[in-house]
Amino acid sequence: MKSTIDNTEYNLTEQYKVNHKESYAAWLQYKKIDDAALVKEYQKWASNIESLADSIVIQSAQNELNTALSLMLDIQPKISSDIKPVNSIVLASMKELNLLDKLDVDFDQINEDGYMIKTVTSDENSTIYLLGKRDAGVLYAAFHLLRLMQNREKLDHLNIVESPKNQLRMINQWDNMDGSIERGYAGKSIFYKDDVFSEELNRIQDYARLLSSVGINAISINNVNVHQVETNLITSSLLPKVTEVASIFRAYGIKTFLSINYASTIQLGDLDTADPLDPEVKEWWKNKAKEIYRFIPDFGGFLVKADSEHRPGPFTYNRNHADGANMLAEALEPFGGLVIWRCFVYNCLQDWRDRSTDRARAAYDHFKPLDGQFHENVILQIKNGPMDFQVREAVSPLFGAMPQTNQMMEFQVTQEYTGQQRHLCYLVPQWKEILDFDTYANGEGSPVKQVVDGSMFPYRYSGIAAVSNIGNDYNWTGHTLAQANLYGFGRLTWNPDLEAETITNEWIGQTFGQDELVNEQISQMLLKSWEIYEHYTSPLGVGWMVNPHYHYGPNVDGYEYSVWGTYHFADCHGIGVDRTVQTGTGYTAQYFKENTEMYESLDTCPDELLLFFHHVPYTHKLKSGVTVIQHIYNTHFEGVQEAEELKERWTTLKDRINSERYEDILNRLEEQVSHSKEWRDIINTYFYRKSGIADEQNRKIY
Amino acid sequence: MKSTIDNTEYNLTEQYKVNHKESYAAWLQYKKIDDAALVKEYQKWASNIESLADSIVIQSAQNELNTALSLMLDIQPKISSDIKPVNSIVLASMKELNLLDKLDVDFDQINEDGYMIKTVTSDENSTIYLLGKRDAGVLYAAFHLLRLMQNREKLDHLNIVESPKNQLRMINQWDNMDGSIERGYAGKSIFYKDDVFSEELNRIQDYARLLSSVGINAISINNVNVHQVETNLITSSLLPKVTEVASIFRAYGIKTFLSINYASTIQLGDLDTADPLDPEVKEWWKNKAKEIYRFIPDFGGFLVKADSEHRPGPFTYNRNHADGANMLAEALEPFGGLVIWRCFVYNCLQDWRDRSTDRARAAYDHFKPLDGQFHENVILQIKNGPMDFQVREAVSPLFGAMPQTNQMMEFQVTQEYTGQQRHLCYLVPQWKEILDFDTYANGEGSPVKQVVDGSMFPYRYSGIAAVSNIGNDYNWTGHTLAQANLYGFGRLTWNPDLEAETITNEWIGQTFGQDELVNEQISQMLLKSWEIYEHYTSPLGVGWMVNPHYHYGPNVDGYEYSVWGTYHFADCHGIGVDRTVQTGTGYTAQYFKENTEMYESLDTCPDELLLFFHHVPYTHKLKSGVTVIQHIYNTHFEGVQEAEELKERWTTLKDRINSERYEDILNRLEEQVSHSKEWRDIINTYFYRKSGIADEQNRKIY
Repeated sequence: MKSTIDNTEYNLTEQYKVNHKESYAAWLQYKKIDDAALVKEYQKWASNIESLADSIVIQSAQNELNTALSLMLDIQPKISSDIKPVNSIVLASMKELNLLDKLDVDFDQINEDGYMIKTVTSDENSTIYLLGKRDAGVLYAAFHLLRLMQNREKLDHLNIVESPKNQLRMINQWDNMDGSIERGYAGKSIFYKDDVFSEELNRIQDYARLLSSVGINAISINNVNVHQVETNLITSSLLPKVTEVASIFRAYGIKTFLSINYASTIQLGDLDTADPLDPEVKEWWKNKAKEIYRFIPDFGGFLVKADSEHRPGPFTYNRNHADGANMLAEALEPFGGLVIWRCFVYNCLQDWRDRSTDRARAAYDHFKPLDGQFHENVILQIKNGPMDFQVREAVSPLFGAMPQTNQMMEFQVTQEYTGQQRHLCYLVPQWKEILDFDTYANGEGSPVKQVVDGSMFPYRYSGIAAVSNIGNDYNWTGHTLAQANLYGFGRLTWNPDLEAETITNEWIGQTFGQDELVNEQISQMLLKSWEIYEHYTSPLGVGWMVNPHYHYGPNVDGYEYSVWGTYHFADCHGIGVDRTVQTGTGYTAQYFKENTEMYESLDTCPDELLLFFHHVPYTHKLKSGVTVIQHIYNTHFEGVQEAEELKERWTTLKDRINSERYEDILNRLEEQVSHSKEWRDIINTYFYRKSGIADEQNRKIY
Repeated sequence: MKSTIDNTEYNLTEQYKVNHKESYAAWLQYKKIDDAALVKEYQKWASNIESLADSIVIQSAQNELNTALSLMLDIQPKISSDIKPVNSIVLASMKELNLLDKLDVDFDQINEDGYMIKTVTSDENSTIYLLGKRDAGVLYAAFHLLRLMQNREKLDHLNIVESPKNQLRMINQWDNMDGSIERGYAGKSIFYKDDVFSEELNRIQDYARLLSSVGINAISINNVNVHQVETNLITSSLLPKVTEVASIFRAYGIKTFLSINYASTIQLGDLDTADPLDPEVKEWWKNKAKEIYRFIPDFGGFLVKADSEHRPGPFTYNRNHADGANMLAEALEPFGGLVIWRCFVYNCLQDWRDRSTDRARAAYDHFKPLDGQFHENVILQIKNGPMDFQVREAVSPLFGAMPQTNQMMEFQVTQEYTGQQRHLCYLVPQWKEILDFDTYANGEGSPVKQVVDGSMFPYRYSGIAAVSNIGNDYNWTGHTLAQANLYGFGRLTWNPDLEAETITNEWIGQTFGQDELVNEQISQMLLKSWEIYEHYTSPLGVGWMVNPHYHYGPNVDGYEYSVWGTYHFADCHGIGVDRTVQTGTGYTAQYFKENTEMYESLDTCPDELLLFFHHVPYTHKLKSGVTVIQHIYNTHFEGVQEAEELKERWTTLKDRINSERYEDILNRLEEQVSHSKEWRDIINTYFYRKSGIADEQNRKIY
């Protein structure tokens, strides 16, 4: 039975490439360019690709250029390793610099993953140099060049110098080996099926291309909740397959990591303890690291969810997180491996009656006291907010609070609480807001992005990770426009200073071409979508009004009487969580003084986080001048209108987008409109019934 | 892998019989009798079992007597087919009457399944006659005799005449072939595992013994939601296995039924329609019936869930339920088979905003207009209430409303909404209340029980069915005291006039022996338990305040904004569903006039159903004198106290119950106490937060 199924599905990727070409290609469309003059100009360089370097990564760059230029320009570039380039694109890393005659470039301008793109023109020759400090930089330069060409930019005076701001630019797959994806909304895993690795390696390669094209350089390939089968990923039974996958990513400059089960020493049957201070446990992991690196010499390291949501960890043995992480770090250190230790640790068996315990405090309370105790190849991976990827929540106060401990950001590209890729919710504006948040860790002007890029404190390692939003759907992301989130994550991680609009326009141009109306409309849709989703869902930063477990759809009391520490305390008088020092849980004190003060006071707390920090009556007047209850009604009515406008905007593009993508997106937008009404009516009805306060505008509430 | 698992589990039943003897034996304990005088007296008859009849059913009676008497009296009865009984137990059906010398009995006193037990004593001889009109009656008589002996009754002047009031006394298994049980709370199926039939036939036989001992004479062996695999139960691939199971039940006087997929003609690949008026469909089912009866000559018939909760049915073809049922009835008629057609039909995609549609109306609205249109081998199976087995709801107005259509009752022994066999909830008092409910269908004194026993209208077929509560747990029912629900269901179905106390005492005596304190305490526990569960759960008949899908645990708004037609409409002023004619959905008009009037008026509507019929302010005064809100608080505080008392009562029996059962039940009661507090606090908090009205007694609300 199984083999039959496998056979029919085996060539999915090839089928997708043919039958769903545009959907599948995402932002690497490489559409034939219609402008004959431009084609002619581009052909000047594109006819020759000359690689001075020779490596699998350079090979990837060559292949990508070759494919892309053939498609866009309808030519067959000549690939060579000439050292005298004439009218060509030249690929070289710093070590080939001596081969480059008279080229005046300064590799000190760029960092390890940086690159330069330089057009050098003389009378009889014009050459575009793609120069990286290492091979990966050359590959990034190639993708950059193709991005310019996809967006019809002039190439004759290029002089680009680019370095990624963040050292680690990572994707976390939450894929299970049974093929399911925790919080996946775009089909099944492309990595696994029925408890074995997928045979569709070309799909994984295409994923690597997408990631590399936006500068991602690390990936963990299994869910942080490591179940029984996945525990075996670090054993000789599965390491050969991991190696195969790692080879695919390596060719795109991406290091492979694994999520591990902290109790592997027990689960794999060798020991009866996982105590990190136990000599046998230490020895076991040292040997395990050796074994892994024999298979994968450039293995990235371990991503670890420990003592969190029923996962095993050092607490069982009365050890702390530093003990737990350092033991693994020692094992990986000789090989240059990293331990990425997640800070998503909280009491997930809380009593809802207990209003003094505050889940938002947990990560800071657990980790802040351990500052300076972690080995230098440990990085703490901290979710952007103190709760869990809500539509709106405060920024985690842990950022900047541990100057002596490597920190990195964890974002969520997969839209768990943000519409599950059925609703449009473009997250780049949210991420930018978070990265720009001033922690005041080093006084004014200490934004989160300077914590996680390692510039604020002398971190040996740092960066940004995010949970992926892809699956084996033919368009990768379920909602085709959700491709923009993956793209945007990569670009923003490369450079957090990029404007959301810039990233958005780049993506639209590559994905849908150069139609001005298309660009304008989609750009508007994407940039407003987070706010729109916020409008018709959970108000004023209070969060959690979703159906338990699924996290899709409205359920105001869904988490109110639960064990998850996720409450809004709405009664007939008011709503919100008092997290002040004065009268509440004291969470505000976890921030640096300026932020503590801002959040502590009703006068200065921003409206959008009011209910995250304060419990107020429904009649409380917001800075906007309307009451809390009227704000709830207003935004929910507006949100639906705005969702309808999204759809209307999209329909103006009917004949300008290929029909599959047009219809796919239209269907999602229609579902969004309909579902936004469900949100509107349930939220408004809930609060109307509870408060008894009528809508000033007398709109329909049930 | 699978075979290993199967091997280790294969002899579960035998292991249970040894390791969990008392738990497994349920009410067929047959404990050795300590009272030497009584043993001596019983031995007078028990040494000889004489069967004048010879059939598999009589064989079962003989076997049961033989086993039971051996265990209780420590003797080895001599079994013979003597026609001159001396100091013996004699088994005979009406057809062997001629063999019985001078026995003065009148078989006209009993019906088809009836029996007589008569002790005839002369100078040198004393004989107990177990006489049935048919063999099944003899078997019931044997179980009756053993019940008397388990309860230490005198046997020397027996003159018992018993006839079941209900013709069909049926159990519905909601078992799926993958081994799961829909709404099962006592392990997995005893019938199926991993999509095949179980090999543990002895377990099924023991189940047959339990059912037969309380007079059950019919069973449907698969879930009414018939999924893909189970659709094949009526095909030659699975009918041999069905036949095997049917043979086991046949030996205990129980007919086997199957739930069928209404779209079998399509699903099994033969036709492209399931239109009941299509000649090919009719022919298909006729041939299918023939095929089934070739395998199982006494096959009971089909149980059908059609056009309900996404199951296929005649609506697809613009046919009505009568069309749908009659087509099947025609196919089964030549073989004496029945179509049991469920009336659980309603719109399960309702818009919660629509307050005019009322799910409670659905069954009546669908079926009442079809009265008289069903073939006479069709029976409509109607759930006790118009919603779905809530802790408290009104009685279905359909009972008595269709004088020309066979009707039967559907109860639920499995505790879906009544604590899932983790809470103690003895349902006999609830069932009695329902059966005694006066429909006024034929004027005053027209109780439901006289509808379903067929005495009110000239029904050809009628009776009572219930969804079973058993699974492969070693004690059958998860909560050991939940065995009483299965026992009570059978006994009450046999005779709805039995007092709850009588049934309860019978059960306790057989299950736990003759200890007076044990009897007193358990009896008190059982008889109060439904009320206690009601106290701390959903108040005043409003229902549905449970976690969606699971139906366990409090969730006041769990179904409030759903598609299921299950709302309470609580706001800051009041709560309840207005089902009156005057101002509401008009549901009350579905009852006969006297009941319509009773429910329509706030003055006469019983408190316990107030919120089922009316939307009232929290300050509304109940007949009890307290307000609705105060009633909610009071009952929820009381309920927890009462749950604690249940546990305390149980602990007084510590040394009087064998330790396994004692501990098992204690564990459940402890969970109940703890979970009842969750109910209390969530319900009270919800209503306090919503109403803003404080508890008069100032008890702790969160």
